[in-house]
Amino acid sequence: MTPSTLDALIEALRCLPGVGPKSAQRMAYHLLQRDQRGAARLAGALAKALEVLRHCARCNTFTEDEICQRCANPQRDPRLLCVVEMPSDLAMMEQTHAFKGMYYVLMGRMSPLDGIGPRELKLEKLVERATDGVVEEVILATNFTNEGEVTAHTVSELMRARGLKVSRIARGVPVGGELEHTDIGTIAQALIERRSV
Amino acid sequence: MTPSTLDALIEALRCLPGVGPKSAQRMAYHLLQRDQRGAARLAGALAKALEVLRHCARCNTFTEDEICQRCANPQRDPRLLCVVEMPSDLAMMEQTHAFKGMYYVLMGRMSPLDGIGPRELKLEKLVERATDGVVEEVILATNFTNEGEVTAHTVSELMRARGLKVSRIARGVPVGGELEHTDIGTIAQALIERRSV
Ligand SMILES: [Zn+2]
Ligand SMILES: [Zn+2]
Repeated sequence: MTPSTLDALIEALRCLPGVGPKSAQRMAYHLLQRDQRGAARLAGALAKALEVLRHCARCNTFTEDEICQRCANPQRDPRLLCVVEMPSDLAMMEQTHAFKGMYYVLMGRMSPLDGIGPRELKLEKLVERATDGVVEEVILATNFTNEGEVTAHTVSELMRARGLKVSRIARGVPVGGELEHTDIGTIAQALIERRSV
Repeated sequence: MTPSTLDALIEALRCLPGVGPKSAQRMAYHLLQRDQRGAARLAGALAKALEVLRHCARCNTFTEDEICQRCANPQRDPRLLCVVEMPSDLAMMEQTHAFKGMYYVLMGRMSPLDGIGPRELKLEKLVERATDGVVEEVILATNFTNEGEVTAHTVSELMRARGLKVSRIARGVPVGGELEHTDIGTIAQALIERRSV
């Protein structure tokens, strides 16, 4: 006896990651009962995003243009290409103000268990980007998770096979970090990756 | 440098209950990257729901009609009015097949700390419904939480002031429940509410 429109909304909300039947129901009630303006804004924002957002032809991040503003910026060093998993990782890198090169956003990571391999990640687009004849070094800034490491490994093989220099951002004890509160694996890695001073 | 359309979508997703900035971002990426069809379906379902769903003039639940099918059903006993918090509670009651009367759905609960009192819950609509001259008994089936109990108390005062018989569904040990695995408060209540056999 649930109205079909309400059922359809609850079902549609389940396309959101991490939203099961119970929370989809709670979300639907909340939107209809307490926040119809928010619901209308969400419907509009979704429709607009689907209409105007696409992937930058150069760095693959979301953009409203053919080539995003960052890629179009002549101030940046086109010889360095930093590979990250998601736009949020790119944002973190930018906040460091320590990198003035270009980016490539994978929009995901390798995850063999979920069937996400080189093809699903469209790594051929990254290969094409990196072999433009201008890029000299590819800097891997994927996460230091299992999936991020697998991704970094695969990308590095592809890049090296094309004669590109490849580097990986360093692991180690966080800035301001105390050894006592740093996990053993990180300390071990920091020891292995020690630098002469 | 985030495209404004993407920012707007991330911001709009935050109207969903329990969704903070990080998960709104994750949801936006997921929809745009992995499930554009789901996103389009969600946008449509939201717009449709806002357009066609309203509250039943009699029981206050969501419906596409002026009066919902359940309220319009002449087979149900109009002398009994069961008050529940949400449509999901109504669905639970119906699954028991133990009640053939009418319902009133509060679409919420009293929550003085959140500023939700009798006025916000529109209890005057319930009073109007219950005093139609046909309802004889109001059965309170709000949750046995603090807020549900406060709600039941307030509703019962309103109903009794209008000469209506009021009852509360029973608390007790769950059917099939073992005392060893039942919380002490429930056992105490089951003792107080014991019935002669
Ligand atoms: Zn770009
Ligand atoms: Zn109704």
